[in-house]
Amino acid sequence: MAADAAPALLYLPGLPEPGARLELAAADAHYVARVCRARVGERVEATDGRGARAALRLVEVRRGVVVELEAVTREPALRQSWVLCGAPQGERADWLVEKLAELGVGRFLPVDTVRGRWRAASGRRARWERLAIAALRQSRRLHLMAVEEPAPLQQALSSLPPGSSCWLADLSGAVTGHGLAPTGVDPTIGLIGPSGGLDDGERQAALVAGFQPLRLSDARLRTETAALAWAVWWSAGGP
Amino acid sequence: MAADAAPALLYLPGLPEPGARLELAAADAHYVARVCRARVGERVEATDGRGARAALRLVEVRRGVVVELEAVTREPALRQSWVLCGAPQGERADWLVEKLAELGVGRFLPVDTVRGRWRAASGRRARWERLAIAALRQSRRLHLMAVEEPAPLQQALSSLPPGSSCWLADLSGAVTGHGLAPTGVDPTIGLIGPSGGLDDGERQAALVAGFQPLRLSDARLRTETAALAWAVWWSAGGP
Repeated sequence: MAADAAPALLYLPGLPEPGARLELAAADAHYVARVCRARVGERVEATDGRGARAALRLVEVRRGVVVELEAVTREPALRQSWVLCGAPQGERADWLVEKLAELGVGRFLPVDTVRGRWRAASGRRARWERLAIAALRQSRRLHLMAVEEPAPLQQALSSLPPGSSCWLADLSGAVTGHGLAPTGVDPTIGLIGPSGGLDDGERQAALVAGFQPLRLSDARLRTETAALAWAVWWSAGGP
Repeated sequence: MAADAAPALLYLPGLPEPGARLELAAADAHYVARVCRARVGERVEATDGRGARAALRLVEVRRGVVVELEAVTREPALRQSWVLCGAPQGERADWLVEKLAELGVGRFLPVDTVRGRWRAASGRRARWERLAIAALRQSRRLHLMAVEEPAPLQQALSSLPPGSSCWLADLSGAVTGHGLAPTGVDPTIGLIGPSGGLDDGERQAALVAGFQPLRLSDARLRTETAALAWAVWWSAGGP
């Protein structure tokens, strides 16, 4: 089966022990029985979003779908990236969250800045988590992207793990396309300003915190495009 | 003024000769007078989307906005890229068109394939052209991305300029992140399969046409994400 044609992974955060049986929730059962047309005895794969890849054997496909967990392997996250992202214009963040998760970003931290604050929006975080899960399933990744609530930039900067590799999206920075690759340090962190840009004090604070300016295109990009371009750069540098 | 804070370019496809005056259309007048709060005697910039950068001096800002074209310079397109793109799932193409234009792609060609056809949609091309114009203005680019109607893949492949540099988004391909840069040949062309992937015959036809497989991430990407990742790779390789 071509890689592109492999079915999506199931996302089962509470994966049981090998030998255990469980009945799939309605949406997963529909996917397995109707979309994939899997039959009793066939296998599907699942992850808990924390590195597990589980083989599930279908033992019943009638009213509900019951699977038996045959085996689980675990893969550590080989690389870790975080995206600190200022507020984009309008409602442009849903697509961004989906794309970052597809590209394998580990953590999405919306940051509030002088020139841009994330609007309060009820239900947004839950929606973003659903989008991250859908992207994990689709891209068959084993590690679910964490989604944070918006926090002030200064607070986010002061809580970064020591020794992180930090990059600031900036038109005046080093050009990514000329052989510059991520260093392999974990986590690798990208900081993208809001649609109005970081102000001088914030930019200075980022430089003091060790962020290196990085130019992602030959023209200015919207916030969400820059965040995506940064994630592409990081994702492409993998093994 | 910081690059990020520079106002958007005006898009005036029928740019007059230097010395000529013209009254801006309502949307441009609103942008200049209300959003940028420009006053008589101040200057704004415009492009015709074909390489011109024009300096316009405001001579009237009252009921309407009248500008005098002071000078025009022309910049050739230093690099050219085309994206041949299979149909993504659902309605995921609007964002893609906007992002490709922001990244400086020159031509967007939707292609119909065995496993995915673009649905007929009235008004879509005009909407995509509006999105491309908005992205040109926002990113202050001088060359407007051309948007084509969907065409069969085989027809698109047979109409590529001889000597193009051609790349096929493919998980089995060469890894972009390890120092592989676009060659600088124009046009540089990316081919991205539909959500179900190219079939074997189509893939073979692309290889015969000179497309080289290129791996854009360490997991499979949705069609529109792969198209975007390809454009990021191309865009980052610029001067």
